[in-house]
Amino acid sequence: MSYKYYMPTKIVFGQDCIQEYSGLFSAYGKKAMIVSGKHSSKTNGSQEDVTRALEKQNIEYIIFDKVMSHPTTNCCYDGAKIAKEVGIDFIVAIGGGSPMDAAKAIALLAKQEISQKQLLQGEFEHRALPVIAVPTTAGTGSEVTQYAILTNDLIESKTGVASEVIFPKIAFVDPKYMRDLSVEITINTAIDALSHAIEGILSVRSSVLSDTLAQESIELFSRCIQSLGEAKARNSIGVFNDTIRDMLAKCSTLAGMVIAQTGTTVVHAMGYSLTYFKAIDHGRANGLLLAQYLELVNEKEPELVDKILHPMGLKTIQAFRELMNTLLGEPETVTIEEIERFSEKAVNTGNMNNCRVRPTQEEVVNMFKVTFK
Amino acid sequence: MSYKYYMPTKIVFGQDCIQEYSGLFSAYGKKAMIVSGKHSSKTNGSQEDVTRALEKQNIEYIIFDKVMSHPTTNCCYDGAKIAKEVGIDFIVAIGGGSPMDAAKAIALLAKQEISQKQLLQGEFEHRALPVIAVPTTAGTGSEVTQYAILTNDLIESKTGVASEVIFPKIAFVDPKYMRDLSVEITINTAIDALSHAIEGILSVRSSVLSDTLAQESIELFSRCIQSLGEAKARNSIGVFNDTIRDMLAKCSTLAGMVIAQTGTTVVHAMGYSLTYFKAIDHGRANGLLLAQYLELVNEKEPELVDKILHPMGLKTIQAFRELMNTLLGEPETVTIEEIERFSEKAVNTGNMNNCRVRPTQEEVVNMFKVTFK
Repeated sequence: MSYKYYMPTKIVFGQDCIQEYSGLFSAYGKKAMIVSGKHSSKTNGSQEDVTRALEKQNIEYIIFDKVMSHPTTNCCYDGAKIAKEVGIDFIVAIGGGSPMDAAKAIALLAKQEISQKQLLQGEFEHRALPVIAVPTTAGTGSEVTQYAILTNDLIESKTGVASEVIFPKIAFVDPKYMRDLSVEITINTAIDALSHAIEGILSVRSSVLSDTLAQESIELFSRCIQSLGEAKARNSIGVFNDTIRDMLAKCSTLAGMVIAQTGTTVVHAMGYSLTYFKAIDHGRANGLLLAQYLELVNEKEPELVDKILHPMGLKTIQAFRELMNTLLGEPETVTIEEIERFSEKAVNTGNMNNCRVRPTQEEVVNMFKVTFK
Repeated sequence: MSYKYYMPTKIVFGQDCIQEYSGLFSAYGKKAMIVSGKHSSKTNGSQEDVTRALEKQNIEYIIFDKVMSHPTTNCCYDGAKIAKEVGIDFIVAIGGGSPMDAAKAIALLAKQEISQKQLLQGEFEHRALPVIAVPTTAGTGSEVTQYAILTNDLIESKTGVASEVIFPKIAFVDPKYMRDLSVEITINTAIDALSHAIEGILSVRSSVLSDTLAQESIELFSRCIQSLGEAKARNSIGVFNDTIRDMLAKCSTLAGMVIAQTGTTVVHAMGYSLTYFKAIDHGRANGLLLAQYLELVNEKEPELVDKILHPMGLKTIQAFRELMNTLLGEPETVTIEEIERFSEKAVNTGNMNNCRVRPTQEEVVNMFKVTFK
């Protein structure tokens, strides 16, 4: 069977990389829109680095800092309206997954007039403003993917809008912006990245290339496990030195390259309901569910589980489960009614076709039940 | 220190992948020029697959099958002249490194009027016709690089013309075209790929990403060692089943992705003279020299050598040397005068700046001497 590999984003990685490579901005035009959330880009230094680089290149810019967590399509339409009015040439997205994903949707909407439904159903022309991404968390991998994950109230879940034209042109990955992330955010985002790498291996679209990147990503995660555990136990980010932040950033970008090839699996499909209805953090939701899906995979394709546990330095799924428990603590309460509803939603997603071990609805229900007792 | 990663080629891998993904051609225009050597693309099925796919997409094509081994710039100017006259939209390069590299140069020359000197010195505009690459050997990796390696009689060596615009848009990698390659070509090209992966690890531009790809490439090579040895011993390609051809093709493409990031080292710089003046095959030249450079690296950065030997399943450089000896047989004779001349050439190449362990001219002389006694 043939497979494709495509990841055209230029990755620039390392401390002060925006400053070092500020010349790269100039290829994309003279008027930029910075898309971000309200606060963090202003305190972690990323916005200042970007504006200084743009000024150095004589690029005008405006700032659209209205992206909320779990971005709505309305927010993207607002951004696109401004981008069109001002005649923006390209977008610089700064932040975690939410601003980057919103920026990608804005980039599409700035180039065409389409309804919310058309956007979410992928009925658009593959034209978009260029996006340059500056991740400030280490989890989403959105800086190297063709996906914009948006809140979709039409189906009460999240929907991934996908197009090759929204691969960021450049990803500036500077771990220094992640230095002050809280223990909770650091752990949840790291587990989001881990989940991407793991789900990549479990995808029908995996290949030697995606597996290679996934296993390296998992290994980078595993080298941070001790620090993540200590930070959790002490509730202090003191242990996250630059080396750890660097490894977590690499882990996340590599895992993003993986899902750009493979997509995600039932774990993400299940997690989206936990996030939409129960406001459980996205990475946390995936992390809570992973062990149980690994149990199911192990029954049918145990060699896939080996591919995951081996680079983690773990011998058993039970050890994996205990690790997740240590890092994530007690799971939330989810009622039987919720489980039934979430399971039905999950099995109707495209993610199901992506699973090398495809669970039945009953098995999805069971995974929820065992995880949330 | 910051580093960049960029490899925008869409890789389509697998048996009959051109047929399966023939629709991808249509994005690049209505008139194609197929660039190839004289013979092999007509006998290994690649040209037929390409022309059938183009016909299916109603794309007109002409065939420029005049690329020789070690392509000259004259050949590239000839191709570009025709491409301009006919109004070609894109190029399909079929073959080993020579046709792919010539096609990239043709793609540049079709978009501008520049002298041979300007071409070889990189004094051109970064505009080119789109190139789609169909490798029919597993060694060069040119299908995923921004390099066109051309014979440069001005400096009596090979020169790499580099530009991001000549990254192929698509690489169709179908191992079936490699089924009938001779024992000698299979071994020499496999060792060329191995050399790319190894030199990537030894480059100052290596990164976690390039190292990950390089180590996987080396591991794929190592899984073919037994078959390569058996083929050599029996002088028969009978042992190269589809699984081996598949792994060698992956090994080569991954290693190409590596050198697209890292460039090559003194080994290639030394090898170019052996090829230019002594007509020693390119992969063979690198393979003969590798062990001696590893010895030098081992004196200063032994952990780099570990990174190479470990995925090969080898314990010592001596074991590596014996493996190369087994696969390549006796080295050619090179005189002291030749060694002096080749060494001076090598130390004046850009490749030297690329070496994490940078040899002196004396050390280069010594590497030649030990290798060719």
